[in-house]
Amino acid sequence: MIETMDVTVQQLRDLIELRQVKNLRVIFDEYNLIDLAEIVELLELKEILFLFKTLKKDITAQIFTYLTYEKKQEIIQSFTSVEITAMLDNLYTDDIVDFLEEMPANVVKHVLNAASAEQRAEINLLLSYPDYSAGSIMSTDFVELEASDTVARAIRKIKQQGKTAETISVSYVISQHRELVGSVRLRDILLAETDNLIEDLMDSDVISVRTHDDQESVAHVIKRYDITVVPVVNDENRLIGIITVDDIIDVLEEEVTEDIQKMAAIIPIEGSYLKTSIAEMTRSRITWLLVLMVSATFTGSIISGYEDALLLIPALAASIPLIMSTAGNAGSQASTMVIRGIAIGELTMSDYWKVVWKEVQVALLSGAVLFVINWLRLLIFAPDTGMMVDLVISLTLMMTVVISKLVGGVLPLLAMLFKQDPAAMAAPLITTLVDAVALIIYFNLAVSLLGL
Amino acid sequence: MIETMDVTVQQLRDLIELRQVKNLRVIFDEYNLIDLAEIVELLELKEILFLFKTLKKDITAQIFTYLTYEKKQEIIQSFTSVEITAMLDNLYTDDIVDFLEEMPANVVKHVLNAASAEQRAEINLLLSYPDYSAGSIMSTDFVELEASDTVARAIRKIKQQGKTAETISVSYVISQHRELVGSVRLRDILLAETDNLIEDLMDSDVISVRTHDDQESVAHVIKRYDITVVPVVNDENRLIGIITVDDIIDVLEEEVTEDIQKMAAIIPIEGSYLKTSIAEMTRSRITWLLVLMVSATFTGSIISGYEDALLLIPALAASIPLIMSTAGNAGSQASTMVIRGIAIGELTMSDYWKVVWKEVQVALLSGAVLFVINWLRLLIFAPDTGMMVDLVISLTLMMTVVISKLVGGVLPLLAMLFKQDPAAMAAPLITTLVDAVALIIYFNLAVSLLGL
Repeated sequence: MIETMDVTVQQLRDLIELRQVKNLRVIFDEYNLIDLAEIVELLELKEILFLFKTLKKDITAQIFTYLTYEKKQEIIQSFTSVEITAMLDNLYTDDIVDFLEEMPANVVKHVLNAASAEQRAEINLLLSYPDYSAGSIMSTDFVELEASDTVARAIRKIKQQGKTAETISVSYVISQHRELVGSVRLRDILLAETDNLIEDLMDSDVISVRTHDDQESVAHVIKRYDITVVPVVNDENRLIGIITVDDIIDVLEEEVTEDIQKMAAIIPIEGSYLKTSIAEMTRSRITWLLVLMVSATFTGSIISGYEDALLLIPALAASIPLIMSTAGNAGSQASTMVIRGIAIGELTMSDYWKVVWKEVQVALLSGAVLFVINWLRLLIFAPDTGMMVDLVISLTLMMTVVISKLVGGVLPLLAMLFKQDPAAMAAPLITTLVDAVALIIYFNLAVSLLGL
Repeated sequence: MIETMDVTVQQLRDLIELRQVKNLRVIFDEYNLIDLAEIVELLELKEILFLFKTLKKDITAQIFTYLTYEKKQEIIQSFTSVEITAMLDNLYTDDIVDFLEEMPANVVKHVLNAASAEQRAEINLLLSYPDYSAGSIMSTDFVELEASDTVARAIRKIKQQGKTAETISVSYVISQHRELVGSVRLRDILLAETDNLIEDLMDSDVISVRTHDDQESVAHVIKRYDITVVPVVNDENRLIGIITVDDIIDVLEEEVTEDIQKMAAIIPIEGSYLKTSIAEMTRSRITWLLVLMVSATFTGSIISGYEDALLLIPALAASIPLIMSTAGNAGSQASTMVIRGIAIGELTMSDYWKVVWKEVQVALLSGAVLFVINWLRLLIFAPDTGMMVDLVISLTLMMTVVISKLVGGVLPLLAMLFKQDPAAMAAPLITTLVDAVALIIYFNLAVSLLGL
């Protein structure tokens, strides 16, 4: 059961209006800050500024991270340097960087001027990593220990560094040269004797990622090894930061969105539906529509090529939509299953023949069912078309399903073989390909079986 | 950088063959168990059984959880009751349940017989929750404290209960009647004075879920509140278990797979591509193919209805594929963007008019571009079709894009309004709908503009 929020915008407005400082503080102590941030989002800037002056700085900082990018900008622009400094002191460095990456240059400058020299150095370091790299999403707030520390000393260090650290469930053990040499769980430290050495408790086979690794590969490491935090090292294996699993959920989400867009013939766009501009959204969609125009011209020319057949037996034209949509859908069903299998790491190149064999069997079974049902459909609803035309249409359907499923199942694997993105081999490409093949089968069967 | 595994199957085989117990133990102490499990998976049953007898029981249990369902069954069936009991003692209850849910009844019985009375009760409790409920994925191994505990006492409890708990980063505070009254982070306990009371450290506004909540809603709670663990309570608010973020990543993945399948006209199936039977896979795909057969018959009858027009101007037939594929793709582009927006919680019903307005603008812009480029295409590649036919085709394309994008953008939101799954409103349904509309526009424009 989720605690229901019974605070409304109006109540908050009234309390602010009446300067009910004490009541406001109680509310922000009591209720979940993520829920409250949604309400704060709806307040006027003037009201927010009063609220931020009233509340404790650590609460203000948390609320701030949950606001939308527009609100953050408004607030920061109305803040004095002193207010910004107080805010920065209560934010994790990775949250500061996340927010700065969305801000215009003048706001970034305003913020960096208010930061302490040490903070500024850290922020600049993080801002310097390429977008979507491990470095760009990592946090530099972690607990570091030395192998020679005793448990008692380690606990003192954890207590001290833990005040600002992103997580304390795992501490990292570094050498004199700051090289990552091990990791140790707080659980193991707590369960040990106070004079045990960290050296004996630590796991020296640490899974780590590099600052320049792509965020997607970081997500895969965290998923594969079922860990909640992964250390980030530079090329000299020196410990630079950590990435926690909650940041990774967002990365996985972005990745899936990208795959889904590719599969629906959309050039992937960053950012949300509502924030993307009309021009960018059009650009991301028109490319494939234009590609389809070219390929549909080709499909159309197949139809033109059999104009005579269509003139002799006009009933053939009526089945074109059926054959095209069956081809397209049977193909994209197969490709979707295989692409998703690859994405979640279930299918690899070594499964090539298994996929082919599975698709052949599914296709033969589906094809047979469609053959029978289509024949019955034509007998009942189109009794005038004649036996042979029925046969041509039903046979085309069956062959179409088999070929479409094979093409749909195999193309994504081939893409992987040639180090291309399997998701790009999705619906649009496959639809076009199998549409053409299906029409060629159709007209060839018609010509030969009907003696046109 | 991920530590590369330099142990091969052959090496492991050789060590097992030569009964090199000590070396085997060193390897399993040194390397990551998830990597090693992949190699163990490839060994013969006989080799695995030797390995399991050789290694420490906690390592064996971990390796076991990472094996495939087939291997697990083989191993358990060769185990004596005593061996099973030893294994169960080293597994978390939720892992035992996960594994039992996949096993045939005789194996489940074999395992339950070997479990202690207490374990059996816990396992049966977890097995009794409906599939995909919070209860079915929760763990019953957590740390519980009382509000009146001092920090010193709490740390003693955490050390003791922490040996078997799934996580110790958060402990839960329960009342005399086992009601959940608060949560407290290990971090806050460690940073406090030893005589502080848990009461003063705990957060009494605990986000929790109920045993019967759907696992997807649990995933959304964890994502929304950015937490790594959520407590599970029953209808009387008594604490029953916890769910950690790593279990949730799998749930989110399953959910996405389901959405993607629906969007590609596949009835969602549980389980992996390779394990699903031919019959089940056919069933999951044929339903939509049959639905499409019905709708394509309808589209076909629109073409039949305009047989006369096609006989008079055969060039019209050649553009049917272009118009149908543009309609289908423009529609599924819009529906994909909106469905994904809904899935990640970005779009809600209140954005209805924003979506409509955005799709109208994108559609008008895309439509205009397609109009111009198609006209040029016809002028260059089909100079014989005549000005008016070009106009009919280009105009149809433009109107088709506008209508398809509107239908694609609005239907998923309408589905949400009527409490239906937006993903079910995806590609197949929209393609069919807009195909028909596009053909009706096409032939009507042809009849009126060409005076047929």
